[in-house]
Amino acid sequence: MLIFVGLGLSIKHLSIKAIEALRSADKIIVDSYTSIVPDFSVSELKKIIGEDKEIIIAERRDLEGESIRKIIIEAKEKDTAILVPGDPFIATTHDAIRLEALENGVPVKTIHNVSIYSVAPSATGLQAYRFGKTVTLVYPTHFKPFSTIETIYDNLSRNLHTLLLLDLKRDTAMTIPEAVKIILDLDQKGELSRILAVGIAQAGTNNQYLRADRLVNLANYEYPQPPHSIIIVAKPHPIELELLYYNAGLPESLYKEYSSKKEYP
Amino acid sequence: MLIFVGLGLSIKHLSIKAIEALRSADKIIVDSYTSIVPDFSVSELKKIIGEDKEIIIAERRDLEGESIRKIIIEAKEKDTAILVPGDPFIATTHDAIRLEALENGVPVKTIHNVSIYSVAPSATGLQAYRFGKTVTLVYPTHFKPFSTIETIYDNLSRNLHTLLLLDLKRDTAMTIPEAVKIILDLDQKGELSRILAVGIAQAGTNNQYLRADRLVNLANYEYPQPPHSIIIVAKPHPIELELLYYNAGLPESLYKEYSSKKEYP
Repeated sequence: MLIFVGLGLSIKHLSIKAIEALRSADKIIVDSYTSIVPDFSVSELKKIIGEDKEIIIAERRDLEGESIRKIIIEAKEKDTAILVPGDPFIATTHDAIRLEALENGVPVKTIHNVSIYSVAPSATGLQAYRFGKTVTLVYPTHFKPFSTIETIYDNLSRNLHTLLLLDLKRDTAMTIPEAVKIILDLDQKGELSRILAVGIAQAGTNNQYLRADRLVNLANYEYPQPPHSIIIVAKPHPIELELLYYNAGLPESLYKEYSSKKEYP
Repeated sequence: MLIFVGLGLSIKHLSIKAIEALRSADKIIVDSYTSIVPDFSVSELKKIIGEDKEIIIAERRDLEGESIRKIIIEAKEKDTAILVPGDPFIATTHDAIRLEALENGVPVKTIHNVSIYSVAPSATGLQAYRFGKTVTLVYPTHFKPFSTIETIYDNLSRNLHTLLLLDLKRDTAMTIPEAVKIILDLDQKGELSRILAVGIAQAGTNNQYLRADRLVNLANYEYPQPPHSIIIVAKPHPIELELLYYNAGLPESLYKEYSSKKEYP
């Protein structure tokens, strides 16, 4: 069997169900590359699930392409758990292994966990049903990701918030200040600079840091290490605005401005 | 302190962090009305966190309106945990208590957990970044919720999926067959009947049941008890289509039709 186990955003998000699955698995493969879980370490994991487990730290090449076949063949004999940051299938990376397992008659089980996808609205106080399409902002190396900017504007035109997940490439995780610069460089209409946005660092951990301000100003704060993400805020409801003030340090001047604002953005 | 603790979709989603918080709280209030966690019971909870806790099962009147003040005043003296199905703030119900606590200088802590908001894409294999605005379909008692149908069409026009959460009123949780009837009654354009959709029952539990078919046909399956929800599917990508076939019993005839379909819906 192949068991995809969500790790959540902190090792302390491991659930009863997740711990049971990891304890009973014959082998554990840890996805170390699709996201960063700041307080995760193999030694902490062993304290929770026992010292005697075979635990393999996997990089991209170990869980993608040619490696998939090997994992599937092994999963026919051994119960193999793949431990994935967040929820196992919110990023689409592991759909390929899941699909190949199913095509080959290997049972697949999923243990869900906390994802930035739901924590971003919940932690900030921005209402989940006011979010439009989510996008990942990628580094503009091979091409300029104008479609990300189009998504932001499209969501704003419908008065919807946008969750921006930030790119992660090998050892480089995009930070909020980097992302702000990339967005402002791509923003040809030039309206996003002064828009209300929230910077989110280490969501769901004990070091969670939230900061609401104009997008351009988000570059000026000190954040804990990644993972980082950003929400571009549509016209906030009064309760959302108050929660941003208390939860995310929205400056009082902006709080007042947005409380009475009619035109948006 | 006021600590909002997510229960997840199953009592076995309780995390290390959640269990620690519940064990150290002076008092635990269990939200029993915003959603249904099928395998939850106070006796199971006590097995996990200990027999000696003061646990109060709260109905709507105990956590809303006049009751909020009482909870806030008590939370100044006692560490009070409010245990909420799913993630504490994906539904907006508890934003009122959170805000009143913050306004009154009572520290608020949130322990996030698994939510249908992220499990719906993850479990079905429909990609999270292809979802538009989420809506709750309410019973058409006081008014006809045409705006829900508009949201579905608006998302479809952008080739985005729609997660439909289903109404819960006291002891009545809307089922998938009821929801299908309500949607088809409201759908004046009449295009939704034959659209691809997924029925989701008891997501994230051991009884999880997923069924992909035309919306009208979703009324004909036998589902486990609620909670139920529905995804209205935009033009599926090939991998999404295959995952619906394996994960959600998409009929082979529909799989073939959608594999070659150009026009959508």
